[in-house]
Amino acid sequence: MTYCVGMMLDRGLVMMSDTRTNAGVDNVSTFNKMHSWEVPGERVLIMMSAGNLATTQAVVSILEERTKAHEERMPSLLEVPSMFQAARLIAETLRDVIGQHERAGEEAESSFGATLILGGQIDGGPPRLFLIYPEGNFIEAGADSPFFQIGETKYGRPILVRAYDPEMSFEAALKLLCVSFDSTVKANLSVGLPFDFQLYEIDRLTLGHRSRIHADDPYYQTISSGWGEALKQALDVLPDFDLGG
Amino acid sequence: MTYCVGMMLDRGLVMMSDTRTNAGVDNVSTFNKMHSWEVPGERVLIMMSAGNLATTQAVVSILEERTKAHEERMPSLLEVPSMFQAARLIAETLRDVIGQHERAGEEAESSFGATLILGGQIDGGPPRLFLIYPEGNFIEAGADSPFFQIGETKYGRPILVRAYDPEMSFEAALKLLCVSFDSTVKANLSVGLPFDFQLYEIDRLTLGHRSRIHADDPYYQTISSGWGEALKQALDVLPDFDLGG
Repeated sequence: MTYCVGMMLDRGLVMMSDTRTNAGVDNVSTFNKMHSWEVPGERVLIMMSAGNLATTQAVVSILEERTKAHEERMPSLLEVPSMFQAARLIAETLRDVIGQHERAGEEAESSFGATLILGGQIDGGPPRLFLIYPEGNFIEAGADSPFFQIGETKYGRPILVRAYDPEMSFEAALKLLCVSFDSTVKANLSVGLPFDFQLYEIDRLTLGHRSRIHADDPYYQTISSGWGEALKQALDVLPDFDLGG
Repeated sequence: MTYCVGMMLDRGLVMMSDTRTNAGVDNVSTFNKMHSWEVPGERVLIMMSAGNLATTQAVVSILEERTKAHEERMPSLLEVPSMFQAARLIAETLRDVIGQHERAGEEAESSFGATLILGGQIDGGPPRLFLIYPEGNFIEAGADSPFFQIGETKYGRPILVRAYDPEMSFEAALKLLCVSFDSTVKANLSVGLPFDFQLYEIDRLTLGHRSRIHADDPYYQTISSGWGEALKQALDVLPDFDLGG
């Protein structure tokens, strides 16, 4: 499994992904699930993936080859004029890759499917955030659904639902994501550190801060150990159930 | 879906279940998923169920018929000498019911499976808590795993993992469960109010307080609205991520 969250804030985009992939519990590896493309001053694209690793790597490879080989006929990710068309290009690539594997070759026990989150901005348009399904269709984040999760989404969802605020700072959003990811890691072996995050500040049209949070990161350890205590204190604030003595 | 939690405390057992059943999103009903049997001064058994409603109702009916028809050959739930044997009787009944439906009749789109939580105490033994699988085997709660969840377990798990304390009072445990259930209800339509809960105080050998919490219950509304605020305050206590200026 995997856990990735893409979040739209008033200040811009925050994307965070874990790095664990596993085929069974005895075949666990660390892979980057976050990819970005940039033409400074013109466009920024950040993509995260959950699902079949071969599928998502093939999608990234095809997209990057396209960006390198200008003589190819297919439109390049660095040339499409809008985020909507970028989402459509990636979605079609994803659907094609899955379709090729499903039609041909060996039957696989696990699915070839993958789900993607795409965020970014292209000059002339606003920043946009998409959730792309393996079927090749996609939905866009809006004021009602300002963040998307993919992979092992359930453990970390309640805190996002409760504490997300579009006006929050990048620093507060990263704290919230650390809590959401930590809740997931504590409950599910298929999600693991390190976590990658990428920020994008609205209208900058260049990638913002990117970093990797390791398990021994002092800040993460503060959050991980402090959150349990903070939760207990939050519970203490609420009144106990009254059994009517 | 369903959400049920059975919890072993130093003081005794706390069991809570939701009441929503659905076959698709357009066929939603309220059903009691918590059943109890009692011989005051001698034994108390509390069972909760998640999964196919016909299966769990058949299991309960068979168990109750057995307790009524003393001439039947099968051992009665009110006569087995230990909690282990009660768990085995229920597990075998569950497996038989599922097996009968799977072998005969129409193929069903959904599974006939169900998962049960059984808690209680029989005179001469300690209180015990079991998780019973549709295959007819079961596991018992212990100091390392002092509570069981069945149904839609993921959303409400992080708060249980963080805040459970075997020394907590029934009143505090019910508060914790209200938060765990509320987190689930807020994220998943297949779990819904009212919630049923049943308490059992260790060595009493009679059922404790049982009640139903409705959506308009003032206490539940206090928890549901107060928890969002309490969580935000808990987050505020933790330091923001430092992006290094």
